[in-house]
Amino acid sequence: MASVNRRNFIKNSGLATLPMLVANPVLAMGTTNNQSAAGTQVIKFMGDGEMFEPVDYLNILQQATIVRDSYGAGGSVEALEKKFVEITGKEKAVFMPSGTMANQLAIAVLSGENSKVFVQDTSHIYRDEADAAQSVYQKRLMPLAKDEPFFTAQQLQAAVEALPSEEVFKTGVGAVSIENPVRRSNGRMVPIEELRKISAYCRANNIKLHLDGARIYMAAAWSGISVKEYASLFDTIYISLYKYLGAAGGAMLCGDKTIIDKMPHLIKVHGGSMYGNWSNAAMALHRLEGFEGRMKNTVQKANELFEALNKIPGITIKPLPGGTNIYSFALSPKIEITKLRDALNTNYNIRIGRVNEKNEGFISVNETLLYQDNNYIINAFKKSMA
Amino acid sequence: MASVNRRNFIKNSGLATLPMLVANPVLAMGTTNNQSAAGTQVIKFMGDGEMFEPVDYLNILQQATIVRDSYGAGGSVEALEKKFVEITGKEKAVFMPSGTMANQLAIAVLSGENSKVFVQDTSHIYRDEADAAQSVYQKRLMPLAKDEPFFTAQQLQAAVEALPSEEVFKTGVGAVSIENPVRRSNGRMVPIEELRKISAYCRANNIKLHLDGARIYMAAAWSGISVKEYASLFDTIYISLYKYLGAAGGAMLCGDKTIIDKMPHLIKVHGGSMYGNWSNAAMALHRLEGFEGRMKNTVQKANELFEALNKIPGITIKPLPGGTNIYSFALSPKIEITKLRDALNTNYNIRIGRVNEKNEGFISVNETLLYQDNNYIINAFKKSMA
Amino acid sequence: MASVNRRNFIKNSGLATLPMLVANPVLAMGTTNNQSAAGTQVIKFMGDGEMFEPVDYLNILQQATIVRDSYGAGGSVEALEKKFVEITGKEKAVFMPSGTMANQLAIAVLSGENSKVFVQDTSHIYRDEADAAQSVYQKRLMPLAKDEPFFTAQQLQAAVEALPSEEVFKTGVGAVSIENPVRRSNGRMVPIEELRKISAYCRANNIKLHLDGARIYMAAAWSGISVKEYASLFDTIYISLYKYLGAAGGAMLCGDKTIIDKMPHLIKVHGGSMYGNWSNAAMALHRLEGFEGRMKNTVQKANELFEALNKIPGITIKPLPGGTNIYSFALSPKIEITKLRDALNTNYNIRIGRVNEKNEGFISVNETLLYQDNNYIINAFKKSMA
Amino acid sequence: MASVNRRNFIKNSGLATLPMLVANPVLAMGTTNNQSAAGTQVIKFMGDGEMFEPVDYLNILQQATIVRDSYGAGGSVEALEKKFVEITGKEKAVFMPSGTMANQLAIAVLSGENSKVFVQDTSHIYRDEADAAQSVYQKRLMPLAKDEPFFTAQQLQAAVEALPSEEVFKTGVGAVSIENPVRRSNGRMVPIEELRKISAYCRANNIKLHLDGARIYMAAAWSGISVKEYASLFDTIYISLYKYLGAAGGAMLCGDKTIIDKMPHLIKVHGGSMYGNWSNAAMALHRLEGFEGRMKNTVQKANELFEALNKIPGITIKPLPGGTNIYSFALSPKIEITKLRDALNTNYNIRIGRVNEKNEGFISVNETLLYQDNNYIINAFKKSMA
Repeated sequence: MASVNRRNFIKNSGLATLPMLVANPVLAMGTTNNQSAAGTQVIKFMGDGEMFEPVDYLNILQQATIVRDSYGAGGSVEALEKKFVEITGKEKAVFMPSGTMANQLAIAVLSGENSKVFVQDTSHIYRDEADAAQSVYQKRLMPLAKDEPFFTAQQLQAAVEALPSEEVFKTGVGAVSIENPVRRSNGRMVPIEELRKISAYCRANNIKLHLDGARIYMAAAWSGISVKEYASLFDTIYISLYKYLGAAGGAMLCGDKTIIDKMPHLIKVHGGSMYGNWSNAAMALHRLEGFEGRMKNTVQKANELFEALNKIPGITIKPLPGGTNIYSFALSPKIEITKLRDALNTNYNIRIGRVNEKNEGFISVNETLLYQDNNYIINAFKKSMA
Repeated sequence: MASVNRRNFIKNSGLATLPMLVANPVLAMGTTNNQSAAGTQVIKFMGDGEMFEPVDYLNILQQATIVRDSYGAGGSVEALEKKFVEITGKEKAVFMPSGTMANQLAIAVLSGENSKVFVQDTSHIYRDEADAAQSVYQKRLMPLAKDEPFFTAQQLQAAVEALPSEEVFKTGVGAVSIENPVRRSNGRMVPIEELRKISAYCRANNIKLHLDGARIYMAAAWSGISVKEYASLFDTIYISLYKYLGAAGGAMLCGDKTIIDKMPHLIKVHGGSMYGNWSNAAMALHRLEGFEGRMKNTVQKANELFEALNKIPGITIKPLPGGTNIYSFALSPKIEITKLRDALNTNYNIRIGRVNEKNEGFISVNETLLYQDNNYIINAFKKSMA
Repeated sequence: MASVNRRNFIKNSGLATLPMLVANPVLAMGTTNNQSAAGTQVIKFMGDGEMFEPVDYLNILQQATIVRDSYGAGGSVEALEKKFVEITGKEKAVFMPSGTMANQLAIAVLSGENSKVFVQDTSHIYRDEADAAQSVYQKRLMPLAKDEPFFTAQQLQAAVEALPSEEVFKTGVGAVSIENPVRRSNGRMVPIEELRKISAYCRANNIKLHLDGARIYMAAAWSGISVKEYASLFDTIYISLYKYLGAAGGAMLCGDKTIIDKMPHLIKVHGGSMYGNWSNAAMALHRLEGFEGRMKNTVQKANELFEALNKIPGITIKPLPGGTNIYSFALSPKIEITKLRDALNTNYNIRIGRVNEKNEGFISVNETLLYQDNNYIINAFKKSMA
Repeated sequence: MASVNRRNFIKNSGLATLPMLVANPVLAMGTTNNQSAAGTQVIKFMGDGEMFEPVDYLNILQQATIVRDSYGAGGSVEALEKKFVEITGKEKAVFMPSGTMANQLAIAVLSGENSKVFVQDTSHIYRDEADAAQSVYQKRLMPLAKDEPFFTAQQLQAAVEALPSEEVFKTGVGAVSIENPVRRSNGRMVPIEELRKISAYCRANNIKLHLDGARIYMAAAWSGISVKEYASLFDTIYISLYKYLGAAGGAMLCGDKTIIDKMPHLIKVHGGSMYGNWSNAAMALHRLEGFEGRMKNTVQKANELFEALNKIPGITIKPLPGGTNIYSFALSPKIEITKLRDALNTNYNIRIGRVNEKNEGFISVNETLLYQDNNYIINAFKKSMA
């Protein structure tokens, strides 16, 4: 982690010479200027997009329109909520401190007095929310499709219909939650046809449906299906503000007014009502401008880039079946990964992740790909492998 | 609320001419330069201190040393936790998104399997946390001292000892929580002698004791008793980061390692684990530097100021019995408060609060008092009342 | 406690000579034979009615019509539920193992998502259910009328209306519960006019209303207002099966179908679903036959008896203001209570309770008063005081 | 269900002629007299043992030694608790209304602050307690061995050790619960070697272990391993009072004093504290006398009987692998099951269960086998199949 102090801030960020500031295509997101200042941007083939260092974060925020909120009411928070109403087509949106809170409150409210909530075995709600569903919200999560990215509508239906013979007491199926794309499955998507069938089944059986769309923008970019279309199949949708959107934290939950209106009280009693939330809201709002266009460019540029990189002997980059922005990455055994990584990092400001003992790993694509043109990157790989 | 955009930001904040930046005594807290830039600071005789507008907030942050955290671990958050260990003398400290979470988790963990927690009737935990204690943490709050700022050790003991005759089942007294100073009692303090007796009683009877010290710095400044000394009487202490310390949100809970070590899991399951928390942590850490000294100056300056203002016919400002930074404020019936308020605001950048139909209200003191010398303020009142 | 074995059972209970069995007016409740077998019945001026010894309990049960239930469904349990639908005029009734469960589930379901439930400070729910409301059902009980038997409609309204100024967050008033008569107030009643006003206020404000009518039959007997009329003012009513009705345990909760239909699941998850419940249900059902008539006789007989006993120098028995079956009892200081108690017990099978150091206590009236005629009792007191 | 009234009671039960009473070998359990009154006992090759009709229940109880309890304290309840301390070798035992409560409170207390509890997929806790663990006790049940009667120590260890890679957050494994024998697996047992390994693993890893031994007496009878030996491997053990022991309800939970001492409060807040519990406690206590001997006889008699029945053409009765008192039962396709069932029932007071379309089903063995000698039963089958 980088330490920032006043002197370095001015020196490093170019604040002293203000015109430089807007030269950064990420920092200047939403502006037309797209020139890059050599050496200041890092292309990250890993992680959930640009996770800004504080110095850059503050710089970008200073370009944003910010209006203060009070405990999440008004100001940039309200503006962001309105923006997400537009994006998702839902009646209402509410800001929350974390995706865990958004997911948990969504399934808790949607399921009401029923205890059972069906989820993917690989989903964040099932595996990575520290048993909050059970220990705080008193729900029973019912995992489907062990180690798979998704369950089918048929599997869901079979599971629901098996309950009367599998259990003596009828406890009711309160809700179904689907993560899409699925982090633990390297960003693989749930096919839209399955989502449509699941949605139809749930609606026909009065089962509420939640979308953990923390990274839904990645699904939208790679599938070509809009966030609004995804959202239309669900009762509620959560979208992360710090994954790809660049905020330091926060989550947005969207849904019917009757559902979302219950949230502020629940946020409060669970301790998530913070005094000022404008720094995350304003950042996300600022960077949402033009975001879908930039992601479209990123997808196209990635396709072209990987086609070219695959021509370099020893490199194989392939999309995952049903994948989004994460690609499989294999190097021929002769290539020394550590040397390659160091060279790319030191000489070209390009970061790639680790590989296993077979020289296989993953490459993630995000907006930082736009920092340089493809020739720069291709050349970097070529030189670094030499 | 003020809207901030790039152009205004540069113009208003003086960022374009950097040396101006550090000229603001609040913005420059922790620096030696104490000159004020005319017209840019507002003296607020109301509220919980400077609640910075985003533009100022970002400006100050850019002077701060910032190191990024990851979900509250490391970086400026860790540095702030260490700082609070020093300040409170407790073994460990943990950052949380809100005071409600800090209070609730403290009493939940301290009381363990026991259901009863004694609190002041007027306390934030009892009245202003939306029944979180009961509805989320399954605790029974036992209010003492109806409408009073505090209960005595004797009242507590009497209440505990009456339980066996008042109830059939022994459910156990898990903890006692005390807010000090008390917001609903206009910042009045719990006398240190009572705190000492309550602490001794609780320790002798194996009852855990929590301090809701959201504004403990105000108690410390007006009583002359250090935060550490207050903290020493309690098992846990919560201190707000956005009241008087200037962060946009956040809370710090300090206590024994065995208690605090349980918190990260609890923060997570309740949805309070945010990705990046450095903007609040760095702000609080930055402004804590020299804070006690500035508060000392503020108290002294307020004493002198109010002595002088009381000589103006028609103004009466008096400390509250057991009070801290909130003073009673009365105007003679002849004075038109709206005219006075407007004049102070428009001509002198001084803000005062509302009064009732008897021309009586309150005046709060905070660091903004240091923006101008007393003669400026006295003159402002005199002129505005003319 | 009496030990029962086969031999003694036959000898003591008169089972060996079956015609004797029905000679006991309590054992034969619901029969026409009302003769008493000398020496086998005890008049208890204390406690919640006949709390049968096992030997008597089994004897009575053998006269009852019993049909087995299966986990509370069907049989005598269903028959008893139907009986209580008739008695209370409510749509549905459900058997539960305990009054605590009945009270808690009633207020939990009635209050729904709202956390606050108003209760009497002296009520069983507030003081004697081991903080179940808070620790299990996550409700906040709001006590009214400290140490008094009841609160007025006006007090309730004032408390509800004060909430917006007493608390920042609106958490909603979910329900009001009233115990009537009140055990901790020595069986005092809530005046019917207040109940009517409270009921009207709650209905006008969409606040649900529960009656803890554990001993409602005592209120009905002493006020002359039917159980059905009391029940009509409330959404739910709980009546104990072991107080005065003679079962060894169990409770009945009555209310709207939509409310009661939620109970079997809740009983199950809280562990209250027992395999066979017929022994309590059949007993209560059996003894309910003619119960109101017997209570009417008891009231009249008590009035006559106490008028006569008050003529004995040194004895003062008075009804309590708003009281039911518990009367104040005072002896002149000269009388030795222990001698009196022993004599009544040993020579006359009459039991009275303890008195304080001023020779003051209480006398409770119940069906056991019917075991002997008043002359027998008057004579017993006279002789025992001599 | 049979309706019982006074007249029929005397006629049917033989109460009018008392010596007949003790002639029933089940009714007289614990006595030496073992003669049977023709026509009054039914041999049940189904269900969880004799589930007495009320009339028989009361008859048996009248032979029992009964001492009244008060809310589960003292009397026959205390005596039964002491008996189970002897039986299980545990420090303390506590009576509860239901097995669901016993299981749930055991795992809740044993797991403490940890959320995860491992169970068999087929277990009662996982499938048949209406999601109480999640919805009331805030636990996450982790099912192992899908559709199998048991998991191995190795499977448990693998599951525990996989957690750090399967989940981001460490939530802690609080407890493991094992049902033995397993009702949903037709009474199959967990092999004692696996139990020993599981116990050793859990103790070495500070994981608490609960035995749902609702029907542990069946495991003990068929495996030859004593209840005490089974219990010694676990921290807590629950045994049903109404399965095979003949009470109408109730459960016993045994374990360390520190665990069991927490139960009365928990029973109370969950609404399970009933006033009188002697009828269930006295029944179980009465029938426990000699119970292990009678089960031994039952096992031996069943072995001999089934060997003989298997010689009848068209009948195949086989023990299940790892089974206890439930045997597979197959009839040749030519045999009409309904005729057989009716003939056995009508002419011989023998009840058998249903079969599937292949004429296959199960035969359960219990104490009612002792009502008649094997020749009677063999003859009954022969004649009924003719």
